Amino acid sequence: VTHFRYLSFLTDYGLEDGFVAACHGVSARIAPHADIIDVTHLIPPGDVRRGAAVLAQTVPYLPPAVHVAVVDPGVGTARRGIAVAAGDSVFVGPDNGLLSWAVTAAGGAARAFSLTNRELWLSRVSPTFHGRDIFMPVAAHLATDAELAAAGAEIEVGDLVTLPAPERMVRDFTAAGEVLTVDRFGNVQLSITGADAAQIGVKPGGTVLVRLGHRQLTLPYRDTFGAVATGELVTYADSVGLFCLAVNGGNAAQRLGLPPGARVSITAIPSIINE
Amino acid sequence: VTHFRYLSFLTDYGLEDGFVAACHGVSARIAPHADIIDVTHLIPPGDVRRGAAVLAQTVPYLPPAVHVAVVDPGVGTARRGIAVAAGDSVFVGPDNGLLSWAVTAAGGAARAFSLTNRELWLSRVSPTFHGRDIFMPVAAHLATDAELAAAGAEIEVGDLVTLPAPERMVRDFTAAGEVLTVDRFGNVQLSITGADAAQIGVKPGGTVLVRLGHRQLTLPYRDTFGAVATGELVTYADSVGLFCLAVNGGNAAQRLGLPPGARVSITAIPSIINE
Amino acid sequence: VTHFRYLSFLTDYGLEDGFVAACHGVSARIAPHADIIDVTHLIPPGDVRRGAAVLAQTVPYLPPAVHVAVVDPGVGTARRGIAVAAGDSVFVGPDNGLLSWAVTAAGGAARAFSLTNRELWLSRVSPTFHGRDIFMPVAAHLATDAELAAAGAEIEVGDLVTLPAPERMVRDFTAAGEVLTVDRFGNVQLSITGADAAQIGVKPGGTVLVRLGHRQLTLPYRDTFGAVATGELVTYADSVGLFCLAVNGGNAAQRLGLPPGARVSITAIPSIINE
Repeated sequence: VTHFRYLSFLTDYGLEDGFVAACHGVSARIAPHADIIDVTHLIPPGDVRRGAAVLAQTVPYLPPAVHVAVVDPGVGTARRGIAVAAGDSVFVGPDNGLLSWAVTAAGGAARAFSLTNRELWLSRVSPTFHGRDIFMPVAAHLATDAELAAAGAEIEVGDLVTLPAPERMVRDFTAAGEVLTVDRFGNVQLSITGADAAQIGVKPGGTVLVRLGHRQLTLPYRDTFGAVATGELVTYADSVGLFCLAVNGGNAAQRLGLPPGARVSITAIPSIINE
Repeated sequence: VTHFRYLSFLTDYGLEDGFVAACHGVSARIAPHADIIDVTHLIPPGDVRRGAAVLAQTVPYLPPAVHVAVVDPGVGTARRGIAVAAGDSVFVGPDNGLLSWAVTAAGGAARAFSLTNRELWLSRVSPTFHGRDIFMPVAAHLATDAELAAAGAEIEVGDLVTLPAPERMVRDFTAAGEVLTVDRFGNVQLSITGADAAQIGVKPGGTVLVRLGHRQLTLPYRDTFGAVATGELVTYADSVGLFCLAVNGGNAAQRLGLPPGARVSITAIPSIINE
Repeated sequence: VTHFRYLSFLTDYGLEDGFVAACHGVSARIAPHADIIDVTHLIPPGDVRRGAAVLAQTVPYLPPAVHVAVVDPGVGTARRGIAVAAGDSVFVGPDNGLLSWAVTAAGGAARAFSLTNRELWLSRVSPTFHGRDIFMPVAAHLATDAELAAAGAEIEVGDLVTLPAPERMVRDFTAAGEVLTVDRFGNVQLSITGADAAQIGVKPGGTVLVRLGHRQLTLPYRDTFGAVATGELVTYADSVGLFCLAVNGGNAAQRLGLPPGARVSITAIPSIINE
């Protein structure tokens, strides 16, 4: 019985050490049939929230898989390891909220298990490298022939640690939220959705009032950054449906000084004023 | 019918987000038989010329493949997406010149198609992520069972956008050109070839006069940087046949302040002076 | 006959150029059955010692493979290329000591060959890119159908270049060594082992006196960094069994100013003083 052809793998291990490769090697020994899709290994060290956001936004485009994610500042302490069935996939990692947004995006946890079955671990377990010694070998066994229930003791899905959802509020003509992520290009992704923008009357081709702290900016709302001149600020709904601020050909996060967590609100500007 | 076992993939997406993985996932769903060779995802954002150079220098060493390349500052605007047959491969990406040098290196475009057939796209297309929603799914279909002509409307190969070739001029005892790329080691690759150097009388073991702006340097021309002492400047013909400046064990681009595009000329020094 | 399903690949090539991909392409053409596990390509340019440490610490977790490693400041000079059988694997790279610690970790060199058989090389060899033109094609042939002896002339295993072992001395209640590596998290790995610590009386749960240059610190010795408060220094035996200094949630190498090679000693503090 082979359960999954694919594993996916997200960590904060970086690429300069051999940590990721050691985990790939563990999978190759246990599940030689499985291909690994590396999501990213450049989550800032210990940034569980960033890891959760990247995982949740990427998994919908991956094939059914055992998704292994390890951003785990509490490694070796009392926090549990878990395997969670959601949608057509299984999620494996620490029970610190890292998996929670992706599990929700996959339709919610159907069943959950604590990784208590040592038979699926490597025979020697380091207290500081559970990715190599517990999470990856368990995932590789689950991908190959082990039933999910073999991972360990079943736990209530309601007992899983979940990260608080990002702040997001829609009222009348204003939507308020926070910076969820900043990507490589410096595009600033808010927790406000494109649908929120539509609901408050912000429409592609129109204009939006953006408030950041004491500043306010009147910006075009377009389909893509290329719709404005190079160097100009623009807003748009991004490829996962979230409201974004960008500079065409530039870095909006640097220009605006907007780190993850910063509060931002948007307000529709009636089209009569737009014109 | 399976057309290609391999895809290759070059972008400016970076490795800190899930963008590359989402594209890998799209390919895995459509073309589970295909292996992806990642060329690089660290092209500086929007640097089409750098992307074109890396692609053209790498593709000759890759197996026949559907080569997907996305450095696409105009994503979502009027620029076309294209699929181009050249040599034993197919190139897929935006029609902004990114593919042009690699297509030339592969023997030139045999046929070209505009990516107008939406049946090969994902069902929902974001205006800002055509790599995930158009280029990769089209490439995966072409690798699997779709004929190239299924990609869309055929276009004249002469209508494809091509990047201007790098400056390069050879006359008498001098060859002039520009910095084409700087690699991780700080080695400075010129648009002048090793064959140009030979033609003007610069021979391995000899000496060459290098002019950069107002400076001129008399440098050894050798087979490899290890032929000079650590910390010394040296010139050589690199692994793709282009004339390079390097510092053995150091970074020539930093030492000389030479960015891509800087003008450089080389002149042979008669061997009687060499000795 | 297929000898190895896996290759592993470690270099200092970086990820911004197409160098790694060109090597992957060479392997795909010669050994299409083989999967490549990338160990890392971010070894600092020319840092043979760092490459040796990462390789030696990662290989024990990889499946049997042809391990290709290229950190090769002497490329194109007189240094040999070698293929070494050790344990259940083969190691291919320059004979500059890079492979030596991993070979030792794999049980020591059983046989060794100089890569003199040009039939396993690419037909054109650049003096500056032996990874692409010699090491990878030889490795791919060895993974596929070539016997190890086909690589070239057999050489005495005692003639292989080996890196000096890191400094390490244990006496009475003190163990002295050097910083072997610093990882992405800033954790400082010493050449002193957890077994050395146990031997001098340092026990998990206890306290250790750490001397760095003129400074001395009294630090807890625990199983994992999460055992101390965020921001606190801690020592522990890491996932490969070496004594480490870390800051929980922080960067110990930066905090302490400890680069690779720095001298450090540890001394047990009698438990009566601990309490």
